[in-house]
Amino acid sequence: MTYCVAMRLDAGMVFLADSRTNAGVDQINTFRKMTVFEVPGERMLVLLSSGNLAISQAALNILHERLHCAESGCSLHAATSMHEAACMVGAALREVHARDAAALNEFGIEFAANFILGGQIGSEPMRLFMIYAAGNFIEATADTPYFQIGEAKYGKPIIDRVIDSHVSLADAAKCALISMDSTIRSNLSVGLPLDLLVYETGSLQVGKHISIDRDDPYFALLRQSWGARLREAFDAMPAVPFL
Amino acid sequence: MTYCVAMRLDAGMVFLADSRTNAGVDQINTFRKMTVFEVPGERMLVLLSSGNLAISQAALNILHERLHCAESGCSLHAATSMHEAACMVGAALREVHARDAAALNEFGIEFAANFILGGQIGSEPMRLFMIYAAGNFIEATADTPYFQIGEAKYGKPIIDRVIDSHVSLADAAKCALISMDSTIRSNLSVGLPLDLLVYETGSLQVGKHISIDRDDPYFALLRQSWGARLREAFDAMPAVPFL
Repeated sequence: MTYCVAMRLDAGMVFLADSRTNAGVDQINTFRKMTVFEVPGERMLVLLSSGNLAISQAALNILHERLHCAESGCSLHAATSMHEAACMVGAALREVHARDAAALNEFGIEFAANFILGGQIGSEPMRLFMIYAAGNFIEATADTPYFQIGEAKYGKPIIDRVIDSHVSLADAAKCALISMDSTIRSNLSVGLPLDLLVYETGSLQVGKHISIDRDDPYFALLRQSWGARLREAFDAMPAVPFL
Repeated sequence: MTYCVAMRLDAGMVFLADSRTNAGVDQINTFRKMTVFEVPGERMLVLLSSGNLAISQAALNILHERLHCAESGCSLHAATSMHEAACMVGAALREVHARDAAALNEFGIEFAANFILGGQIGSEPMRLFMIYAAGNFIEATADTPYFQIGEAKYGKPIIDRVIDSHVSLADAAKCALISMDSTIRSNLSVGLPLDLLVYETGSLQVGKHISIDRDDPYFALLRQSWGARLREAFDAMPAVPFL
């Protein structure tokens, strides 16, 4: 399983991904689920992937192979808009589907893969897309400025309560990490290390890109103190009157 | 959809169920998902149901029809242990499966129904079971003193952080309601009114059984102040140092 979240705020974007993959519970591995396509000063795109690892790797492979392709509508490095980039990711998924879906179906394996694509190209505003296995996609708006893929439910309540477009990048990153902590705590198939990427509006280059491991003192502090704070908040709530 | 949670604590048991059922998003109804089988002074059993409403109602109908059956292994009012009662619920589900599963399958409908059964019979300790659609079941232990059915993930993090066997009934009820609030906020298919039942160890009768509606001042206060408390807890957390 996987948990990834991406937020599009006035101040920039925050991307967070875990790195655990599993086939059953006895085959657990670490694979990065965050891929960056960057031409500093010109474009900064982040792709987060979930679902069947063979499918998402196959689609990523197509996208990487075509980075230096000269034809139009072919390379993420040449896309003139985020919408065109999202179409390319969708098209890559459709190519993999055309090649693999029938064979997977014979083994009873669903063609499951979702991507989040976010970033900024040239003078266009930042945009954030959720791309489905069928290659179609939706875009985040001011009303819903974030997307999650994978094991999304455990970590959704804190995001729903904290995130709107006006939140600072520091608060958004903190919120994403707390959301990840809630998910890791409740679901074994989501695990460290984490990839955190923070992008500032208009910068057209990666701001911070950090790998957070078991030894990271801030994440350890956050895991410990969030539990305590939550407990304090719980204790401070009024008691049920009818008992 | 549904969200139900039941907790078995040293002090007693807490049961909470929502009441929304839906077939798609345009056919939303209110059905109670909590059923009480009580013989005061002798036994107190609570059944919570999730899944296909036709299946859970059919199983409940069998259980109700047999309450006055004189054969052994037949009536929940005559079960000599909670384990025997859980077997009866499982057997009712298997009867419905034998009658309906093939017909449902022809319409591509999965035979989906889960029950939680908790309570106390005579001098036996309180026991809590999760009963699957196949009629088999598992029992809660001191390590895992609660079960959830339905849309369980949004409300699980707060339970994991607060509930152990030593928690008071008042705190457990408060925690269950906060867990329900997180679920209602994130999932449209879970909704008011709620059924809350609190049972005290050894009492062999329902303690409190309350219906919580939109107008309930405590639940309204809880919904409002939990959001504010969570936000305070969030603000009090240390800022991400690497930004």
